[in-house]
Amino acid sequence: MKVSNYRETEPIKEIEGVLKRDVITAEDGAPNYSMRYYEVETGSSTASHSHPYEHEIFILNGKGVVAGEQGSIPITKGSIVFVAPNEPHCIVNTGNEHLEFICVIPLQGEEKKR
Amino acid sequence: MKVSNYRETEPIKEIEGVLKRDVITAEDGAPNYSMRYYEVETGSSTASHSHPYEHEIFILNGKGVVAGEQGSIPITKGSIVFVAPNEPHCIVNTGNEHLEFICVIPLQGEEKKR
Repeated sequence: MKVSNYRETEPIKEIEGVLKRDVITAEDGAPNYSMRYYEVETGSSTASHSHPYEHEIFILNGKGVVAGEQGSIPITKGSIVFVAPNEPHCIVNTGNEHLEFICVIPLQGEEKKR
Repeated sequence: MKVSNYRETEPIKEIEGVLKRDVITAEDGAPNYSMRYYEVETGSSTASHSHPYEHEIFILNGKGVVAGEQGSIPITKGSIVFVAPNEPHCIVNTGNEHLEFICVIPLQGEEKKR
C-alpha cells in the first residue's frame, strides 16, 4: 500500500501554465492505470490532442471547459469527465483560480508490468 | 465524451454509513476501469476486505485512516492511496465531517467490453 499527499510528488511542467504530478504509477506497483494530478493556470489549457486510450477525470477545484467535437462543455468542482479513446479534447481554465483535477489513464506499453 | 456532476449519479447505500456513486462505468463506454465516488459518515467504515485487483484512491474531504496489514495510516484531503491487488484494507472516517473520496477500480469480467 502507498499512502502519500499529492504535494509529495514533484510537479512536472507539461506545457506553459500546466503542472502535472504522477501520483500513482507503475513504479508504485500499479498494474493497469496511473493517476495524475493537474494544475492549470488561469487562461491556460492542456494541449488539444487525441489518443487511442481513455481519460477518467474528476475536477477538484476551479472553473473551465472541456473542449472537443461536441463544443466547449463547462466544468467545475465536482465535475466528472469521461473522454473515450480517440476523442479530441483539451481542458481550459476560464476561471480566476487554478483549475485542478485528477486524470486516470491506462499504462502504456512498457509501463505495464503484467 | 460524458460530462456530468457526481451528484447527478444516484447514490447507492453500500453498507450502513457508506454511500457509493458509480460515476463512470462500462455503460458510459469505459473500456478498462470505473470511477466511484464514496461518502463515509462520521464513525463509519468501508467493509474490510481484499480482492485480486487494485484500488487507486484520492481523498477529497474529511479525515480518517486506511487500515491494513501496515496498521492504520492517517488520510485527509489531498491524500493518495494505492491499494495493491490482494491487500486487505478498509477506510475509516475518524473525523467530524463526511469522508469523501474517489476510488478507481478495474472493470471485472463481463463488465469489460473489450
